[in-house]
Amino acid sequence: MKIKRALISVYDKTNITDLASFLTQQQIEILSTGNTYKALSDAGIKTQEVSDYTQFPEILGGRVKTLHPKIHGGILCNREKHKTEMQNLGVEPIDLLITNLYPFRETVSSGSNEEQIIEQIDIGGVALIRAAAKNFRFTSVISSIQDYEALKAEMIKNNNETTLEYRKHLATKAFALTAHYDSNIHSWFLSQSKNNELPEFFALYGHKVQELRYGENPHQKAAFYSNQFTKYPLEKIHGKELSYNNIVDIESALNIISEFEEPAAVIIKHNNPCGAAIGDNALEAYEKALSCDEISSFGGIVALNREIDLKLAEKLNEIFLEVVIAPSVNNEALKILQRKKNLRVIIHKSFQQNVKYQIKNVVGGFLVQANNNHTIKAEEMSRVTECTTTEKEKEDLIFAWKICKHVKSNAIVIAKDGCAIGIGAGQTSRIDSVNIAVKKAGEKCKGAVLASDAFFPFPDSIVESAKHGITAIIQPGGSLKDQDVIKAANENKIAMFFTGVRSFFH
Amino acid sequence: MKIKRALISVYDKTNITDLASFLTQQQIEILSTGNTYKALSDAGIKTQEVSDYTQFPEILGGRVKTLHPKIHGGILCNREKHKTEMQNLGVEPIDLLITNLYPFRETVSSGSNEEQIIEQIDIGGVALIRAAAKNFRFTSVISSIQDYEALKAEMIKNNNETTLEYRKHLATKAFALTAHYDSNIHSWFLSQSKNNELPEFFALYGHKVQELRYGENPHQKAAFYSNQFTKYPLEKIHGKELSYNNIVDIESALNIISEFEEPAAVIIKHNNPCGAAIGDNALEAYEKALSCDEISSFGGIVALNREIDLKLAEKLNEIFLEVVIAPSVNNEALKILQRKKNLRVIIHKSFQQNVKYQIKNVVGGFLVQANNNHTIKAEEMSRVTECTTTEKEKEDLIFAWKICKHVKSNAIVIAKDGCAIGIGAGQTSRIDSVNIAVKKAGEKCKGAVLASDAFFPFPDSIVESAKHGITAIIQPGGSLKDQDVIKAANENKIAMFFTGVRSFFH
Repeated sequence: MKIKRALISVYDKTNITDLASFLTQQQIEILSTGNTYKALSDAGIKTQEVSDYTQFPEILGGRVKTLHPKIHGGILCNREKHKTEMQNLGVEPIDLLITNLYPFRETVSSGSNEEQIIEQIDIGGVALIRAAAKNFRFTSVISSIQDYEALKAEMIKNNNETTLEYRKHLATKAFALTAHYDSNIHSWFLSQSKNNELPEFFALYGHKVQELRYGENPHQKAAFYSNQFTKYPLEKIHGKELSYNNIVDIESALNIISEFEEPAAVIIKHNNPCGAAIGDNALEAYEKALSCDEISSFGGIVALNREIDLKLAEKLNEIFLEVVIAPSVNNEALKILQRKKNLRVIIHKSFQQNVKYQIKNVVGGFLVQANNNHTIKAEEMSRVTECTTTEKEKEDLIFAWKICKHVKSNAIVIAKDGCAIGIGAGQTSRIDSVNIAVKKAGEKCKGAVLASDAFFPFPDSIVESAKHGITAIIQPGGSLKDQDVIKAANENKIAMFFTGVRSFFH
Repeated sequence: MKIKRALISVYDKTNITDLASFLTQQQIEILSTGNTYKALSDAGIKTQEVSDYTQFPEILGGRVKTLHPKIHGGILCNREKHKTEMQNLGVEPIDLLITNLYPFRETVSSGSNEEQIIEQIDIGGVALIRAAAKNFRFTSVISSIQDYEALKAEMIKNNNETTLEYRKHLATKAFALTAHYDSNIHSWFLSQSKNNELPEFFALYGHKVQELRYGENPHQKAAFYSNQFTKYPLEKIHGKELSYNNIVDIESALNIISEFEEPAAVIIKHNNPCGAAIGDNALEAYEKALSCDEISSFGGIVALNREIDLKLAEKLNEIFLEVVIAPSVNNEALKILQRKKNLRVIIHKSFQQNVKYQIKNVVGGFLVQANNNHTIKAEEMSRVTECTTTEKEKEDLIFAWKICKHVKSNAIVIAKDGCAIGIGAGQTSRIDSVNIAVKKAGEKCKGAVLASDAFFPFPDSIVESAKHGITAIIQPGGSLKDQDVIKAANENKIAMFFTGVRSFFH
């Protein structure tokens, strides 16, 4: 299609006079709307105003400008089939649309009020873009300032024509934009609503913020997309780019650390914790966490919920770590950490779960589930054995339960003195996870407590725990064999508590 | 807002005369477009045609009907602020919009050609819906036939008014619809393109197909959403509803089984395989798979890539299984399986990876990565030791590698005779996974082969493998200590192959 007539209606006027001058040089007629008309006229570019062409004024303070059959007819017409009809109505074909939309997302991000936000829902621009994209067999649609130079190059190469392939590429981008735009609007409306039901239409729509070097493995492409109105919450203050696996492990680390108010530290490897502890301060918490499995901690991700000071930085530097995350790092500590070239240091101020839903692609579509937001309280623990516990053991049970929630199922966590000492993860049989955890804990098992993310199908795990000196167990309960399990606990002087809440995590 | 005037423009005319009659009874004026006008008039309902009101004909065979300032002005106006302006232009407020869209997705699903598909991109309807939703302070937008009854109830309750809360709820639904609609269009355009880059805007947008009883745990809400143009590929022919965890495990099972052309069976528990084998037929494959870890297989998900016959059904019935998936089940086998009330029997005809990308929510947005589609070929295996292997060992190495790719990292799979005999999953240290795998394999380790999803950081795993009689190892290579690892293999008469490809899976 040779371009003879263009419609320009842009909110962001960056580079528009330059592009319009180019079009004028190519003898292309330009139609434009209110403010765009003004900007182009001020730059000495000849253009006809849309209201002059349609003989209908811009109304409602600019809310309705281009929603007119002479405009949409010109964009949507088939140049051959509708030729006579168009001529009879005085509708001229529009071969090129250049537009960009009201900044809806940016307006929400800037903290504007509801009225301002609603005013930035673009109606006319979206209608133009969609019409031009639908009719890509005839119409070229430029919906991003980034495409101005490519358009010029395409037109110069083809003597003011664009190829069908190029127009289809532009249409693909156009529908990506409108889908994304309305998804942002929908997200904002949802954020206004108190409805917690999973909606009829579920959107996960984001714009690419960072192309990653690769995904879980070097042969897999990957990228990070943002779908939030707020600023990206992680700030890297030292080290090279985060990898895909770093980001996934950071997520696990943040989820665990957000369970705790008191100073806490967690060490993640392969998306499972290999150490976790609370302490009087961050240094103590980290030293305790490290003691769980120092070998596995090599190359790990460490998250802390307190500032990193000099002493902690020196301790962190003793082994190779991939990432350290904390709400702040003081100056002298940062200097120490910066000595490690391959360490990434990340600031994350608020330790709250930011994600409301988890999404998983499966055959035929995807699953959406609400996060596991349940946090155990002491009064929810129901004792089912004759034996009871000390207050300290009870605190350790709660600690172990909180960690266990974030260990891949079947999950067993053994803890003592606010410190995980044995973690059994990812086994297809519960007794196997128990065996792994007690083996890791070794001699420290004596007097320690144990958490299980789901019920025990048989009493074998209780007997095994008792052999290694476990004194108390927390688990959901609910097995057909609960009575046998309780009996085994009683026989082995183990105190057992049911939570009534399962914590599978796969 | 008291509703005085409605615009009706519907593609799907189900129940529309009933609703229009109701509106007429409430003394509400109705504007309507071409075919809707005809349907209402035929039913004896008084309505004004849009073209009569705007004094502009419907053009381009119906492509442009409502894209007119008198229509959009009526929808978008502020009833107070713009009153005089509207009166001067002869624009009447439109308080209620009733519309539904051209069936784009259904047209793609039905296998229509490009021209037919493009014709079903609704421009005017989307523009109306978006305008009315934007102006929800004044306008009620009904974008789904499902909402007709609720609208009537709302109007009856409030004497022809609608509440602001209800209008905002309708606007939220409207933007969900338009975002979803354009996301479908974008998906179709993408499917036409050869571009494999991760796009600037990434969409995962689906419509709810099934509310699940719960998610990974009973306190988590969950639902299944479809985002495909094609029919849902799984067909349940027996048993109760699939659970969230069933669907997740089915996905893992299908991914593993799709690695094999020959008869194969896999058993999944907690998203990890606890058994996998190939055989001369499905029965043999299943019996071998079961032998890997019969205890863990209890309550598992079994996938097969061959028809289930009588003998296999009888064998499957010997233990408690949650789900059995196969491309077909013959009649007598189905009768046997139906005896198990709690077993779900699923038919899945094509064993191909359907999902192109994996998505993971993380703080600030989400990660997208291409699937791990790499499949090892014998010629990609590079021998790095003096020792070599028999052809049979080499086949077992490839088999073990294929399974290992789907075991949670750190992953170790020991195999013999086309059968997994020891699987070490989900450990934060590689040697721990080796220890788990050799322990599971027990005496069978002698003469077996071993696969590791990533390189060995130290020679310890090789020494441990040799102790248990492993004769060959496959792994990506790439460790700083590769030379030490190779040396340990040579010293222990183990043949080792590097693939050059890592297979982390978390």
